[in-house]
Amino acid sequence: MGVSARSRRLSRRAFLAAAAASGAAAAVGPASATHAPAAPDARADLAARLRAAAHAPVLQKSLFPRAATISSVELLRNGRFFLVRARTSDGAVGLAEGHGPVLESAWPILARRVAPYFVGKDARDLDALVDGVYVADSNYKWQGLPFWASVASVELAVLDLLGRIAGVAVGNLLGSVRRREIAVYRASGNRGNSPEEELAYLQRVTEETGAAAIKFRLGGRMRYDQTTTRRDKALIPLTRKAFGDRVTLYADANGSYDVPTAVEIGRLMQEHGFAFYEEPVPFDYYEETKAVADALEIRVAGGEEEPSLRQFRWMIEHGVLQVVQPDMFYFGGMTRATRVARMAEAAGLECTPHMSGSGLGFLYAAHFASFAPAHGPHQEYKGTDELPVSSPTSPLRAEKGVVRVPTGPGLGVEFDPAFLRAARVVEG
Amino acid sequence: MGVSARSRRLSRRAFLAAAAASGAAAAVGPASATHAPAAPDARADLAARLRAAAHAPVLQKSLFPRAATISSVELLRNGRFFLVRARTSDGAVGLAEGHGPVLESAWPILARRVAPYFVGKDARDLDALVDGVYVADSNYKWQGLPFWASVASVELAVLDLLGRIAGVAVGNLLGSVRRREIAVYRASGNRGNSPEEELAYLQRVTEETGAAAIKFRLGGRMRYDQTTTRRDKALIPLTRKAFGDRVTLYADANGSYDVPTAVEIGRLMQEHGFAFYEEPVPFDYYEETKAVADALEIRVAGGEEEPSLRQFRWMIEHGVLQVVQPDMFYFGGMTRATRVARMAEAAGLECTPHMSGSGLGFLYAAHFASFAPAHGPHQEYKGTDELPVSSPTSPLRAEKGVVRVPTGPGLGVEFDPAFLRAARVVEG
Repeated sequence: MGVSARSRRLSRRAFLAAAAASGAAAAVGPASATHAPAAPDARADLAARLRAAAHAPVLQKSLFPRAATISSVELLRNGRFFLVRARTSDGAVGLAEGHGPVLESAWPILARRVAPYFVGKDARDLDALVDGVYVADSNYKWQGLPFWASVASVELAVLDLLGRIAGVAVGNLLGSVRRREIAVYRASGNRGNSPEEELAYLQRVTEETGAAAIKFRLGGRMRYDQTTTRRDKALIPLTRKAFGDRVTLYADANGSYDVPTAVEIGRLMQEHGFAFYEEPVPFDYYEETKAVADALEIRVAGGEEEPSLRQFRWMIEHGVLQVVQPDMFYFGGMTRATRVARMAEAAGLECTPHMSGSGLGFLYAAHFASFAPAHGPHQEYKGTDELPVSSPTSPLRAEKGVVRVPTGPGLGVEFDPAFLRAARVVEG
Repeated sequence: MGVSARSRRLSRRAFLAAAAASGAAAAVGPASATHAPAAPDARADLAARLRAAAHAPVLQKSLFPRAATISSVELLRNGRFFLVRARTSDGAVGLAEGHGPVLESAWPILARRVAPYFVGKDARDLDALVDGVYVADSNYKWQGLPFWASVASVELAVLDLLGRIAGVAVGNLLGSVRRREIAVYRASGNRGNSPEEELAYLQRVTEETGAAAIKFRLGGRMRYDQTTTRRDKALIPLTRKAFGDRVTLYADANGSYDVPTAVEIGRLMQEHGFAFYEEPVPFDYYEETKAVADALEIRVAGGEEEPSLRQFRWMIEHGVLQVVQPDMFYFGGMTRATRVARMAEAAGLECTPHMSGSGLGFLYAAHFASFAPAHGPHQEYKGTDELPVSSPTSPLRAEKGVVRVPTGPGLGVEFDPAFLRAARVVEG
């Protein structure tokens, strides 16, 4: 992709944004004729549209003629698995797997600071509850992964509950299901192996899952040195050569670089047609991230660690990221992730959520992709583990590069009854 | 203070910054003649000085000729109090109170994700350990209050340990003790009472503590309505009238307002000579905070919830805040807070840390003020509670508006032996 491609991409982005705001015809001329910084009017207009997208209603309340008062929210544990169970006063039950590796260290936050807030509230007010739990008990000071993953774990159980009450899948609670076959990319967790070893691994997993897209890791995770850079520079051309054009390639630097190194590596990626470049510099180095994005044609992806809806809006408005990646857990659940996806849509960007490692993360990502706007061509996939759960409408794993979204009510899955019986309630 | 005062203040700030960088004489002319935005050169220069201030060494390693290898870091609990005990392999012990109300919900983070990292490390590398624990085990994704308060709780025990080894107070480990008498302001925690009731409360606590400065709350905490605004507009003139000029007045809106309301309230505060205006809008609304600061003469204070050193640097560089308030716990301890204070100094701003409510928070704030640069005239004080701890060199409470910093090694306090014996080790 040359400079002209970049200018086409920028023009298209500006065009989409302007078209969404005021109809296509009026904006085509200037937007496609230049890629200078947006004029003040266009910028103010984008800001207003992002604000609107961030705060529009999400849950389709019209599906619920009657109140759905939450009577209990329990945290259950069975080994390394954490489940959240939400009940209404008239006997409906919702159940979701929480984020095990996070709750291992964060469960008292869920049990003490999050779950009690939801009890006694009407689940139909979910939008307001997600905002409300943030302000209650000064929880906003706790903004960050352990708090938001706790909120997300509860929200998923409430969504399952609401879906079962209304008899619709999660995607129809938060929007309208547009697709059931979710193409995935396989993300490698390796670092420190040789380029040849990593290539062999990537070839094996793409064969196993049939994924038409893969992502591998660059740098040393929040650091780099000569050894990691040597691996990076070998792996980028090696993977393209091995996979040819039939596989979409992504890479994730996990915040490893400084700006000059990030730009150098990014140039190599764009020469080899990589589709995005995740976290070139540390995630809270916003100016540096933008500097890298501005210097490159390849799209910069990020947002996995971003806990702030306002800061996502700022990053989108200021062109820091071109692919936004809220994590379904770390960012606080589907309601908030929908707000980010809508902002991405308003700015003509792509929203491809980050997927945390374990359990049902892949299922939540698939449900989200079933309805969310601005979704990218592939969703992240990190495999499944041995959680005893099944679905009559989905194999609950990637097959031929596709995860099939369950169509049953709520999350559309059933937990093994014996596994559930053996789970114990965790008290705060 | 009129517009000319603002321009004097801005000029003085620019002057201090320029003077610090390159000697006073060269910069006086232009800096005092205008308060236009800083020229690109001055801005780049400030950015470079902030970067240097953020990354310069903090712990005075030269005090330690021999390694101080940490052999254990234990989290202890006695009722609602949490203690951290650090030992070296040659028998030295450091002990600090952790943040009780936070650890109540965050203790597994300390026990699982933070404490183990420090074991086996040389305590003399404290700067690197505080940075290192952030990167280890992908903890950077956990950036935020519960993680950083856990790091701070461990760091305080390690500082006590190091101080006992070297035979010096904490202030001489991290700098040079410049003052032992720390003037404090009393912070009221009230909201929702009438202006007259709040005034009576403020009069009582200033009499009790002898504080020559007070801070009270505005708005409704992350919200406001007609009732809260009526209280705000009454209380601001009422307190000034009651206390006259003999008491310094501060107020904290806890992120309550939107920009227009924040500016309206701020104008009233500056008319009545308030010394700073804390968190007019939600803490992660950086653009809005800056908009409020730019519209007002009164200095805007904030930073209590900021978990990112890089973002503090950004806020200082871009003039978002004029008084920076890292919390000794929420921000991750004294090493990191020192980095913020040094950045504040480099920019000619004030650093007055936020103090969390309970336990020994006031003592840690006093130790910090004993050596830190850019300290304001008063440090926050929220009283003490019944933690059984004593010091031969300090009454460990505010008397006549002053907290006396202990001079003994480390934190300079001793915990009651029976209280310690009754404490139990908390396992992750």
